[in-house]
Amino acid sequence: MEYQNYLPIWDKLTKDQQERIAQVIEYRRVEKGTHIHDSSADCLGLVIVKSGQMRAYILSEDGREITIGRLFEYDVSLLSASCVMPDLQFNVMIEAEKDSEFWSIPACLFKNLMEESLAVSNYSRNLLSSNFSDLMWLMEQIMWKSFDKRLSSFLLEEMQLEGAPLLKITHEKIAAHMGTAREVVTRMLRYFQNEGMVRLTRGSIEIIAKEKLESLSDT
Amino acid sequence: MEYQNYLPIWDKLTKDQQERIAQVIEYRRVEKGTHIHDSSADCLGLVIVKSGQMRAYILSEDGREITIGRLFEYDVSLLSASCVMPDLQFNVMIEAEKDSEFWSIPACLFKNLMEESLAVSNYSRNLLSSNFSDLMWLMEQIMWKSFDKRLSSFLLEEMQLEGAPLLKITHEKIAAHMGTAREVVTRMLRYFQNEGMVRLTRGSIEIIAKEKLESLSDT
Repeated sequence: MEYQNYLPIWDKLTKDQQERIAQVIEYRRVEKGTHIHDSSADCLGLVIVKSGQMRAYILSEDGREITIGRLFEYDVSLLSASCVMPDLQFNVMIEAEKDSEFWSIPACLFKNLMEESLAVSNYSRNLLSSNFSDLMWLMEQIMWKSFDKRLSSFLLEEMQLEGAPLLKITHEKIAAHMGTAREVVTRMLRYFQNEGMVRLTRGSIEIIAKEKLESLSDT
Repeated sequence: MEYQNYLPIWDKLTKDQQERIAQVIEYRRVEKGTHIHDSSADCLGLVIVKSGQMRAYILSEDGREITIGRLFEYDVSLLSASCVMPDLQFNVMIEAEKDSEFWSIPACLFKNLMEESLAVSNYSRNLLSSNFSDLMWLMEQIMWKSFDKRLSSFLLEEMQLEGAPLLKITHEKIAAHMGTAREVVTRMLRYFQNEGMVRLTRGSIEIIAKEKLESLSDT
């Protein structure tokens, strides 16, 4: 399958627009851990995920991170093209969390397409409103959910992504995802272990009472 | 001056589109304190501010608030039209902070205009990316700025809005704006007073050393 099948608006483009995309679209295969985008340094453009898993995050001045979104197969993201959106000023990083394949359409071409094609403009607006909604949700989580709820939701989500109850993830990594300190994560995980929800071993967390976590996470 | 002058894309609309707006646009004059929008209950549509000052905020289940944006003369907002944006699911409230005048274009008409007009679609996308950027900034403030910096920035902003160093605002109100508890605000304000930055009296806060607050707020 080629990129045409991964771009929902392909059929709404003119022949000429399709050709301009075909001339410049780039395909890349990256290994887990690769930083594919840093909006302070470059502007990758529209990203179309063929396979794998990526995460978008923001970084504070003192190096703390918070994950603002994840990308999977068939996902299309504008977060890597913030340079083409007026008034969009923040620094988003994207890294591959698993070996991944993706295409990118350069920012300058995509900007032109948005401005000349109603289909592309509407599609982009919808992508953006989806990002906006996610960010609003995340902010509400941060503001209003107590940390135990957030952490249990996070573990359940990871378990679903992995397809198994054994998570190979460090407390540091979780802290980075959640924009908090490692100590806070460790303390809460020990609490979860004492409550019989998880079993902690070096470098991994095993979920042993999914239903208890679920009732805590309120989802 | 009529609404045509307040809508930057007016001249890019067709005669027909202009007439459809003219037929349904509503003008309202509201008093300070009026709740003009609650996205869980209604969908006002596009709001165009003629005069006054409004704030958009979100509300948690337990009644805490956080201000996510402010609207002044000539501002146009889609936050009151979240119902027409796919995937945009959150509850935004808008209230008048001063006596205000505004126009609203009903959501259903505006949705149609976005889908048929490239100019409207592009304009809406730009409004949305500006909101997105603001929200990202706000989240960074919440996540990473220590509370003393946030509070000093808030006081300086209020001072600029009022045009005077005497702010008639309660600690409760500030706490609501900042999504925190009154006690947290009171503690920090007392610290500011001890440092000779503000003078606290019943129901008001006087800024007496603007430059100290500025160096703290890092702006």
